[in-house]
Amino acid sequence: MTTPTLTPKYFNITYPQEYVAHVEINRADKMNSFFEAMWLELHTIFTHLSHSPTVRAIILSGAGPKAFTAGLDVKAASQGLLSSDDSQSDPARKAFHLRRHITSFQDCISAIERCEKPVIVAMHGFSLGLAVDIATAADVRLCAADTKFAVKEVDIGLAADIGTLSRLPKVVGNFGWVKEVALSARVFGAEEALRVGFVSQVFGGKEEVLKGALEIAGLIASKSPVAVLGTKDILNWSRDRSVEDGLRYTSVWNSAALQTKDVSAALLSGIQKRKPTFEKL
Amino acid sequence: MTTPTLTPKYFNITYPQEYVAHVEINRADKMNSFFEAMWLELHTIFTHLSHSPTVRAIILSGAGPKAFTAGLDVKAASQGLLSSDDSQSDPARKAFHLRRHITSFQDCISAIERCEKPVIVAMHGFSLGLAVDIATAADVRLCAADTKFAVKEVDIGLAADIGTLSRLPKVVGNFGWVKEVALSARVFGAEEALRVGFVSQVFGGKEEVLKGALEIAGLIASKSPVAVLGTKDILNWSRDRSVEDGLRYTSVWNSAALQTKDVSAALLSGIQKRKPTFEKL
Amino acid sequence: MTTPTLTPKYFNITYPQEYVAHVEINRADKMNSFFEAMWLELHTIFTHLSHSPTVRAIILSGAGPKAFTAGLDVKAASQGLLSSDDSQSDPARKAFHLRRHITSFQDCISAIERCEKPVIVAMHGFSLGLAVDIATAADVRLCAADTKFAVKEVDIGLAADIGTLSRLPKVVGNFGWVKEVALSARVFGAEEALRVGFVSQVFGGKEEVLKGALEIAGLIASKSPVAVLGTKDILNWSRDRSVEDGLRYTSVWNSAALQTKDVSAALLSGIQKRKPTFEKL
Amino acid sequence: MTTPTLTPKYFNITYPQEYVAHVEINRADKMNSFFEAMWLELHTIFTHLSHSPTVRAIILSGAGPKAFTAGLDVKAASQGLLSSDDSQSDPARKAFHLRRHITSFQDCISAIERCEKPVIVAMHGFSLGLAVDIATAADVRLCAADTKFAVKEVDIGLAADIGTLSRLPKVVGNFGWVKEVALSARVFGAEEALRVGFVSQVFGGKEEVLKGALEIAGLIASKSPVAVLGTKDILNWSRDRSVEDGLRYTSVWNSAALQTKDVSAALLSGIQKRKPTFEKL
Amino acid sequence: MTTPTLTPKYFNITYPQEYVAHVEINRADKMNSFFEAMWLELHTIFTHLSHSPTVRAIILSGAGPKAFTAGLDVKAASQGLLSSDDSQSDPARKAFHLRRHITSFQDCISAIERCEKPVIVAMHGFSLGLAVDIATAADVRLCAADTKFAVKEVDIGLAADIGTLSRLPKVVGNFGWVKEVALSARVFGAEEALRVGFVSQVFGGKEEVLKGALEIAGLIASKSPVAVLGTKDILNWSRDRSVEDGLRYTSVWNSAALQTKDVSAALLSGIQKRKPTFEKL
Amino acid sequence: MTTPTLTPKYFNITYPQEYVAHVEINRADKMNSFFEAMWLELHTIFTHLSHSPTVRAIILSGAGPKAFTAGLDVKAASQGLLSSDDSQSDPARKAFHLRRHITSFQDCISAIERCEKPVIVAMHGFSLGLAVDIATAADVRLCAADTKFAVKEVDIGLAADIGTLSRLPKVVGNFGWVKEVALSARVFGAEEALRVGFVSQVFGGKEEVLKGALEIAGLIASKSPVAVLGTKDILNWSRDRSVEDGLRYTSVWNSAALQTKDVSAALLSGIQKRKPTFEKL
Repeated sequence: MTTPTLTPKYFNITYPQEYVAHVEINRADKMNSFFEAMWLELHTIFTHLSHSPTVRAIILSGAGPKAFTAGLDVKAASQGLLSSDDSQSDPARKAFHLRRHITSFQDCISAIERCEKPVIVAMHGFSLGLAVDIATAADVRLCAADTKFAVKEVDIGLAADIGTLSRLPKVVGNFGWVKEVALSARVFGAEEALRVGFVSQVFGGKEEVLKGALEIAGLIASKSPVAVLGTKDILNWSRDRSVEDGLRYTSVWNSAALQTKDVSAALLSGIQKRKPTFEKL
Repeated sequence: MTTPTLTPKYFNITYPQEYVAHVEINRADKMNSFFEAMWLELHTIFTHLSHSPTVRAIILSGAGPKAFTAGLDVKAASQGLLSSDDSQSDPARKAFHLRRHITSFQDCISAIERCEKPVIVAMHGFSLGLAVDIATAADVRLCAADTKFAVKEVDIGLAADIGTLSRLPKVVGNFGWVKEVALSARVFGAEEALRVGFVSQVFGGKEEVLKGALEIAGLIASKSPVAVLGTKDILNWSRDRSVEDGLRYTSVWNSAALQTKDVSAALLSGIQKRKPTFEKL
Repeated sequence: MTTPTLTPKYFNITYPQEYVAHVEINRADKMNSFFEAMWLELHTIFTHLSHSPTVRAIILSGAGPKAFTAGLDVKAASQGLLSSDDSQSDPARKAFHLRRHITSFQDCISAIERCEKPVIVAMHGFSLGLAVDIATAADVRLCAADTKFAVKEVDIGLAADIGTLSRLPKVVGNFGWVKEVALSARVFGAEEALRVGFVSQVFGGKEEVLKGALEIAGLIASKSPVAVLGTKDILNWSRDRSVEDGLRYTSVWNSAALQTKDVSAALLSGIQKRKPTFEKL
Repeated sequence: MTTPTLTPKYFNITYPQEYVAHVEINRADKMNSFFEAMWLELHTIFTHLSHSPTVRAIILSGAGPKAFTAGLDVKAASQGLLSSDDSQSDPARKAFHLRRHITSFQDCISAIERCEKPVIVAMHGFSLGLAVDIATAADVRLCAADTKFAVKEVDIGLAADIGTLSRLPKVVGNFGWVKEVALSARVFGAEEALRVGFVSQVFGGKEEVLKGALEIAGLIASKSPVAVLGTKDILNWSRDRSVEDGLRYTSVWNSAALQTKDVSAALLSGIQKRKPTFEKL
Repeated sequence: MTTPTLTPKYFNITYPQEYVAHVEINRADKMNSFFEAMWLELHTIFTHLSHSPTVRAIILSGAGPKAFTAGLDVKAASQGLLSSDDSQSDPARKAFHLRRHITSFQDCISAIERCEKPVIVAMHGFSLGLAVDIATAADVRLCAADTKFAVKEVDIGLAADIGTLSRLPKVVGNFGWVKEVALSARVFGAEEALRVGFVSQVFGGKEEVLKGALEIAGLIASKSPVAVLGTKDILNWSRDRSVEDGLRYTSVWNSAALQTKDVSAALLSGIQKRKPTFEKL
Repeated sequence: MTTPTLTPKYFNITYPQEYVAHVEINRADKMNSFFEAMWLELHTIFTHLSHSPTVRAIILSGAGPKAFTAGLDVKAASQGLLSSDDSQSDPARKAFHLRRHITSFQDCISAIERCEKPVIVAMHGFSLGLAVDIATAADVRLCAADTKFAVKEVDIGLAADIGTLSRLPKVVGNFGWVKEVALSARVFGAEEALRVGFVSQVFGGKEEVLKGALEIAGLIASKSPVAVLGTKDILNWSRDRSVEDGLRYTSVWNSAALQTKDVSAALLSGIQKRKPTFEKL
């Protein structure tokens, strides 16, 4: 299978540094809000980058000064997801159609988590609703000081269903805070996000958070991809399972991974005090 | 099934605001310490409020200036739970009787977690032993600055068995701290509780924490109950399961919930910049 | 089965206080770095202390001023684990051999977690790689201000496989931070470790952290061993399972444990305001 | 808590032999079909017998010559469960009400599984729909040669929701057969039920199956109740969990249960070749 | 999303009866053995039929007189899956590539299980290796008397990795038999398959098994699709989870599904003794 | 680590054929009943054979004409396990000691399941109590026509705790039968064992069952050990987990295992119609 070159419509993809891809949500005039074609494209992009041998770390951010993403484009959504089956008068049949839509939507956002390469999300401005679903599916969360977060869904009569409610309790170890922000839909800022551990670092502004993301991405991209991809995979597996199942999976994983030449490459360059290079993966 | 009016003996129930219930442990002269009839009544109350259409958020606090609750009424307990089977000379049979008692006791406190409506616990003064079991079964934990917490059970020769050991590691994401306070039974204060995330906010005194709880409860009660109750249920489900099982459960849940009129009601009042009203649930 | 007296070669074991054992990694000239004979001995020690009736709490630290442990003795390891099967030209067979090694290694470190008695790890100086695997298997983590931590494995081309990736997400409730340090292998210090909850307390220097560890160990050792050992076991069980399975296991556990005389001993000495004494376990 | 004497309205309870209770569904004129008051009473009965010291095994059967039970009284149900919320025009709110009903209904039938004492179900004639839900919640299934079974729910437009779909795949190890009968609603007879392992034995007629049930119940009732109740509890736990979690739960359970005097009583009477007697439980 | 018409290359799709689709593996000259393009197409077909409103049950069989499928086309596979990375000299990198291939292959076969509609597999002749992977992903297994089955993989040096080892122990409740056939790769026939429950029925020849499959498919297709699709989904969910999680999922599922008009349609036509018709789904 | 030669005291180990080991319980004068030293030795043997490169399949049987094993040597046990702590008057402390004993005992029997090589148990005569624990830990169960089985534990006042209750429901897909034999302790014979799937085949007598076991063992031993050991490991993993977790584990396992030269060796000898030889493992 040859991988086709990506020519996304709603996203910019650049390569600011060797082995680092930068995916930018590109709908600044609408606060980078999402409609269905966008999350389908997001899925395509991350599925592609997942196997791309020239990419070892990915940054995800939003275009324009105002928002990472203001979430679902409610207008588009109300014409789509929520109203698509209005003709359908049987609530059970409507439920089947809704469930198919939700499952497909969840699957698109989960492509970020399934992506073999680490994803660093760099947020600024409005980061509402779907922004949190996306952020929790990523590996590292950074933000600018002006970021405004909200698990906004209850404000439009919904329980968030694209990942926030399933992932936020596993990303932030403060279940009371998770409940409070998810039940009240209140806005919280960068400092609060840092304090509870929703983000790892806060930066001055959009430029700074992008620079910070690039630094981390660059650092990760300089390591053995065998080690990095294994680490992401095993951490996600272990998060959801018992320590015992985590250890066993790790032992099976590493029975192949330890056979990499990267180990001797890394050890040797450590001794020679030079930067190691690793084969593509 | 018509729901009988509640006339509790050991608790006060008031309705400080539309859709908000306030349950107060009412045994101030004994530091609100619990004996069996009390936890059975607690079970009845929360099971009732769970389905009451006029309640959308619940505050739980303790009467009097001294304590949320000092925990188990050890005197009563030593006449009950622990000694009830002293005549029984067969340790295996005694174990059956103890297990039945523990299971019934656990089930009563779990009624807070099973309650469909969010429960905000507002603590002050002594909040020992059973207080922590109760608090971890609630959704949001707030406290006054003078609150004294302890996972007190090891001090009376017990491993805490009414929920603390099962829920605290899932409520606070600092397993070392959880182990330390549970193994040492040492007292910790409001600031420490805030720092580790056991409580979400600390308030000046009892009045202030109640006011703070009412504010959060009022905010939650102003939202769509379909959205709020779904959010609580899905968060509790997801906490205990893999992200994948969380996503799937959410998709099934929302296949019915998205059919609510609350979505259009919320969207419309958003456009019209007025407070939405939602049908009872 | 009479338990043989321990005469370890790579560890010092002392008893600084009644019911408290202090295990010291004793290879200071090599920064307490580990090779296979050492982790096999670690396993023997903790398996022994687990059942030793005169031990109720254990401190684990490293000898010398420089390091708790700098991790795997890479030199020894590269002659052992990683290269032992170089003659083997079949990657599948090599994978079997590697998996057996990893499983055996994991099992040795897990002896700390399986040990019935609480283990307090007191760290200082370099605490790299295997140091984090060991620390996450312990119950309480303390450190000196000069401690330098790193999940170092990706730097030598590996995904950490002796426990860090399985346990760290369950010990620290900040999954973004866990990912970042595990993916980047960057060093983090005592203050950062405290802020994210990897350690519970930071002390001035090595002496102070040992003193602090002794204080906690002494406090725990003064409690009913029935209560303390039950608390450790139930917390570890509950961490990995649903609240429901946690509650049920607890009820079965306590159906035996509540029959201890320690309860009345504890209650009585509480009334008499004297320190209780508890039978050996 | 003194247990009140049972005076059921829709069931007969007799005690055909020491330590054996026989619960008979007593609505023969309506083919023993169920409406809500009946399953609430079933719940009360099995919760009561679960702790009754004079009961060690329970037989469940249906009165009259025609049916164990023809299932849900569809007429009553269509006035109740399915239509009760017709006034409710919001499908999400209706879903909440339906879910509460289903949960309560499930909980009543699960009382058979939760009952500490083994339950032997003796079926004959029509055993449709709810009959299968009930039978799978029991421990041992026996039937008369004339029994007609069907997982009937799809024939009335439903997925069976009171337990059959959750329990049947765990009771019968032939998943293709389970799917086929559940998807087609076709009737199957006693011989087929025996061949796939849905029932353990087939008897000539109703009298014979009751006699057979009494024989097994009597045999079980002659054993140590500590051993019997532990065996049921551990088997149900293990069915749903990994072998590892099964073994660990068993070790904790038996750490109390092995302290019973029944072991020496059983061993001694074995030596003396007489029937042991065991204390009540 | 409009669904494109299917024009498969390696399969025939016919509609022998209203609401029934028949998918036939169409490579009779090569014993219907599979190569990559075929399983990718299989995935497309079942994903399409899953949502097709005119399909309610699916039959899967193999063209020609000799085989359902002889399994993997080893020649094609040895040029593809197994050798594709021969240039790759790093076993860890090769492992990544192999894992991606296996995951993609598994995902294609799992499309049969994920398909919302029941799948009846009608086997005859050689049904080796991949045939068993496919059959265990289906819902009902039927076969002709001449069918020759084998879990063939160990004979080519592999542990079966496309589903047999994960699903067979859940489809057949005889773990010793599962182990024996999987470890020995020995051929077993129709009668043995029936006896252990791997197939539900054995028919004379290919024509008869197809006729039998059509009968079951037709019966299922005559039922309410809301009921049938819910039954398949809940049974698959419950198979892998505890009874408790099964019951809860069912209650949430049915809170929407019970609102279908199919219930009244089914009840009414029951009373009127005529065949009900149900809306498309 | 060089493996010491085994010189067992209570077992005979022979090698009837290349790559096949035969372990015989050698205490025929006491019906091969077990005491503690025996199960500790059993553990040593299976742990050793697990890694022995000259063993690819193992047969386990009992010496003498009368019994595979009559189970626990009750006399020895009553002096050991059950009475060892009689001096201990605290039931909680006694529970700790009992739990340690049970855990150690379980761990010894589980060595059969953990053994990387398939274990075929060949039973005859009395096969009571512990015999069933042992048999369920093995992979394939065969027996002679005269075999008398019983889950005997309830007859001595115990719930079986060495594995039967955890494994039998996963080995035999007839939960009602499992319950019945475990609750009643009644004897069942070879034919019944075959019918429910507890054994795979019944042979005339002891010689025949041994011959049958040797045939299966020989067949398995002739296959690629990479394929065989992987198949056992993956089947055991999958039995206890969801299909999804089974598939993922398999993909990781095979990413190393598929790199074996055994695949080409097997394919080549298939073409050349000769028996392949495989390197040691």
